[in-house]
Amino acid sequence: MIVSPQSMSFPDPLPLRSGASIRGYSLAYETYGTLDADKSNAVLICHALNASHHVAGTYAGQADSEGWWDTMIGPGKPVDTDRFFVIGVNNLGSCFGSTGPMHANPETGRIYGADFPVVTVEDWVDAQARLLDGLGIRTLAAVMGGSLGGMQALSWTLQYPERVRNAVVVASAPNLTAENIAFNEVARRAIVTDPDFHGGHFYEHGVVPKRGLRIARMIGHITYLSDDVMNEKFGRQLREGVVRYTTQDIEFQIESYLRYQGDKFSDYFDANTYLLITRALDYFDPALAHDGSLAKALAVARAKFLLVSFTTDWRFAPARSRELVKALLDNGRDVSYAEIDAPHGHDAFLLEDARYLGVVRSYFNRIAREAA
Amino acid sequence: MIVSPQSMSFPDPLPLRSGASIRGYSLAYETYGTLDADKSNAVLICHALNASHHVAGTYAGQADSEGWWDTMIGPGKPVDTDRFFVIGVNNLGSCFGSTGPMHANPETGRIYGADFPVVTVEDWVDAQARLLDGLGIRTLAAVMGGSLGGMQALSWTLQYPERVRNAVVVASAPNLTAENIAFNEVARRAIVTDPDFHGGHFYEHGVVPKRGLRIARMIGHITYLSDDVMNEKFGRQLREGVVRYTTQDIEFQIESYLRYQGDKFSDYFDANTYLLITRALDYFDPALAHDGSLAKALAVARAKFLLVSFTTDWRFAPARSRELVKALLDNGRDVSYAEIDAPHGHDAFLLEDARYLGVVRSYFNRIAREAA
Repeated sequence: MIVSPQSMSFPDPLPLRSGASIRGYSLAYETYGTLDADKSNAVLICHALNASHHVAGTYAGQADSEGWWDTMIGPGKPVDTDRFFVIGVNNLGSCFGSTGPMHANPETGRIYGADFPVVTVEDWVDAQARLLDGLGIRTLAAVMGGSLGGMQALSWTLQYPERVRNAVVVASAPNLTAENIAFNEVARRAIVTDPDFHGGHFYEHGVVPKRGLRIARMIGHITYLSDDVMNEKFGRQLREGVVRYTTQDIEFQIESYLRYQGDKFSDYFDANTYLLITRALDYFDPALAHDGSLAKALAVARAKFLLVSFTTDWRFAPARSRELVKALLDNGRDVSYAEIDAPHGHDAFLLEDARYLGVVRSYFNRIAREAA
Repeated sequence: MIVSPQSMSFPDPLPLRSGASIRGYSLAYETYGTLDADKSNAVLICHALNASHHVAGTYAGQADSEGWWDTMIGPGKPVDTDRFFVIGVNNLGSCFGSTGPMHANPETGRIYGADFPVVTVEDWVDAQARLLDGLGIRTLAAVMGGSLGGMQALSWTLQYPERVRNAVVVASAPNLTAENIAFNEVARRAIVTDPDFHGGHFYEHGVVPKRGLRIARMIGHITYLSDDVMNEKFGRQLREGVVRYTTQDIEFQIESYLRYQGDKFSDYFDANTYLLITRALDYFDPALAHDGSLAKALAVARAKFLLVSFTTDWRFAPARSRELVKALLDNGRDVSYAEIDAPHGHDAFLLEDARYLGVVRSYFNRIAREAA
């Protein structure tokens, strides 16, 4: 499936939860499949930290350019683009195409940098709703996402309950734990205290806070994987086969892997985007405005739900998905829940796993049947 | 109990596992209680990452200077200094009194810095054995330690089996997992890539790589605590009570706590010591020389053992202690094992917990009875 990115510009300012607003912004997006005549088969995919609107397919002439959820979405795949019109959208503040910190602020003409407004999951959902308006789509057959993307899918059912028929929330949580926030904060401190960060205005200094980005990515990677899969893939393997007695050079394969991931990430990810996205994760907490009651917070939802979690995911543990299941059941909602026994930790939501893909396929078959 | 530190200098070079050796070194130590006439009541305490020879008691005129295991060791305490002669020793490479990277290399007259030789758990045990020789102590009633200290206690039973009657190994492991090594490596990278590290020779530049030390400590703190205790102590509490929408300032109490811990640590801990100690942790793996068989590695041990683990410790999980129990039982050794249901994660080994202290007290009562 050959795909190509598109962009939509929005003339009206978008009010944000912080009280600020953003104007003159655009969103990058892609679509796969065909919108049917009554515009009832649209599926919106929301992305997590390190992803974009490029959800499925490849770009012409770039064989290795598969979208980040290409195992899940495409012709004949669990989310079947022969039946559904699938939309991938890049969030505000990202560094992959939509308006973000590396773009010029139309108010000042200066690169936003650290002055880019703080955005929340709710703001992203509002922006996505405007994109759907622009595409002439009133109601989504489904909104779907994993991790931070799952938070957006959940938030859709609360902010626009009448526009969502189904929500698929994978490897997600109703909010971050203190430990989750702690890992985000260490990553942010590594970036902000990198001398090349320059208070978030490094662009004009011609440098990039790569040291901080590397550390942030290394921490992230540890939390995406399970202890088990790390032991299986790397264990205590020595890179040179023998101990060399060095504190600064690589001894273990796991070190080599992490450094490689950190280097790669620091070459393409924007430091201000990292701060913004991890903060959006920290802030998401629909129960906060309802005396901490998740059941009260979800009372407004009208969608049917599929929730999926993975046994070895310690970043967004199955217990967090079960909190959501319980709060939805307390409200009499239609909920399917699958806890997939997978060794890969949080990363499992991006990987090929027959049971996982099978559950999603069945659920989308039901959506298609109910629409028919 | 008022105590005071002592120091012993060693004229003979100490050969190290790396092939290097160190000469002209000294070890800081403290003792509590009285060595009996037949020198049979000595207990050696080995320390973990951020600790020293100052295990118990306080320094004269400094009421707040309790030793790091003062809940455990002292008159009438589980390790009762009215009965036992307890020795705390600071390891080579530390920054708390023994010879370390901030001292001058007698070969060159220059501060060691990153040139301080890489030291292993086995090297530390060798150095501790020389200290005992200097004190005229041939046999230990017990060697005891938690975490990295537990690794040293275990190693004592393998390197000097005839000199150890009992080993008390708390919250420890037969080696680090890939995830453990990964966290150590991120911390080391944060330090080494701090521009103020200067390749480990920052002393002569009059700076300290505080940014890196702060990040290292923040990562460490997350792994010392359990998710549960973090949620209980900090949860999602906001420092100002309301969301302020900021990516660089503190929003959550957990952030405030971590930054404080990082700042405090960076004021007193040496960056090269951090590298050395985390590497000693990484390298420890007695099974490596025995085809990966822990049972074979422990066959030489003659001591009786008490092992203790804590249910919520995910850094050195109970399963790791159970590996040690099994390997010791495979060798027909006398092993007691207590898995303490405690919410505090790895930190539990340093905290007051009646069941934990009770188990250690009972075990030391047995040691005293058997010696009588």
